[in-house]
Amino acid sequence: MPHPVVDFFYEFASTYSFLAAERIEALAQERKVTLRWRPFLLGVIFRKQGFDTSPFNVFPDKGRYMWRDMERSCDRLGIPLKRPEPFPQNGLLASRVALALPDDARPAFTKAVFRMEFCDGADISDEAVIHDAVRQTGYELEMALSAAKTDLVKHALRKQTDEAEAKGVFGAPTLVTPDGELFWGNDRLIEALDWAAGRRVERL
Amino acid sequence: MPHPVVDFFYEFASTYSFLAAERIEALAQERKVTLRWRPFLLGVIFRKQGFDTSPFNVFPDKGRYMWRDMERSCDRLGIPLKRPEPFPQNGLLASRVALALPDDARPAFTKAVFRMEFCDGADISDEAVIHDAVRQTGYELEMALSAAKTDLVKHALRKQTDEAEAKGVFGAPTLVTPDGELFWGNDRLIEALDWAAGRRVERL
Repeated sequence: MPHPVVDFFYEFASTYSFLAAERIEALAQERKVTLRWRPFLLGVIFRKQGFDTSPFNVFPDKGRYMWRDMERSCDRLGIPLKRPEPFPQNGLLASRVALALPDDARPAFTKAVFRMEFCDGADISDEAVIHDAVRQTGYELEMALSAAKTDLVKHALRKQTDEAEAKGVFGAPTLVTPDGELFWGNDRLIEALDWAAGRRVERL
Repeated sequence: MPHPVVDFFYEFASTYSFLAAERIEALAQERKVTLRWRPFLLGVIFRKQGFDTSPFNVFPDKGRYMWRDMERSCDRLGIPLKRPEPFPQNGLLASRVALALPDDARPAFTKAVFRMEFCDGADISDEAVIHDAVRQTGYELEMALSAAKTDLVKHALRKQTDEAEAKGVFGAPTLVTPDGELFWGNDRLIEALDWAAGRRVERL
């Protein structure tokens, strides 16, 4: 039987998407679930909700909580955390390059970008940063950038965002299982992957 | 050594506060953590954020997701779920009665109210519903209602809400550990109680 395929929708500016990207591969492999890494632009969806920045900036108590929660989570995972300025970062270039790269290079590229953004506090709209991330995949920046600037890739990213929205995605990360169930948040990875694998969900 | 005391801030209208109330006692007991059950009025905090109803109503995709997530969670816990109309319910009376009752009656009363609200779809602003919940604690409705209507209890509820806000609470449920750490959501119960108990937090 082919492995179930789960859509992993993530946003490059999103702190919890970063944690999900760090954790999801091992969890999926254990359950024989295949992942489709799908970057999208959450800001487009937020703007339709009336937000012109991250809700973590709009609601200061929620934002303070999120950063403290990230510190605790990163401590547990043994990951250094450094808050990028500004937050949220502009993930447009990273998203286009991620989509331009072949599927099998996308996870490594994505994880490299997230690490530079949230461990080094780097500006991911900077081509030099993207350059480093591309290099880690074995591709060359110029190749990736030329492809990323094509109308095809721009259109693919818009389509990706439209599809996320059509499925009901309102935050990131969100996992979508083959039967169309949505699971929102880094807190729901295990539940989503268990669901896709047909495992009884044990954890509460 | 005395057990650590964790504040369990909950809102009677909140779906995830209901799930937390169902789960938290066993989890706290396992870790020798004492709970303070602290109902508060989340609506007061939401209004300051510019919401005049639950964000689950303001953002329809998020609301649809929440109800589906509740269905899945209740299935796992073996709890029947019935959506009350309207949602959110007005939890003012329930909150006042909960505070009027002695501390040791508050958990049973709270769980009874939540069950009627989310398993039977009952209107918890109705005195007859509150009557049934009070009876399950061994107290009489008239006693509880008279106390609930005193200025002392009204003031205590306002104070409870002010304290929640001062601690940075922006949603429900929220657990606050003795060292002032906040843990938001039914998804964070184990992490919060492990933290309070000085256990290394294993779950990711």
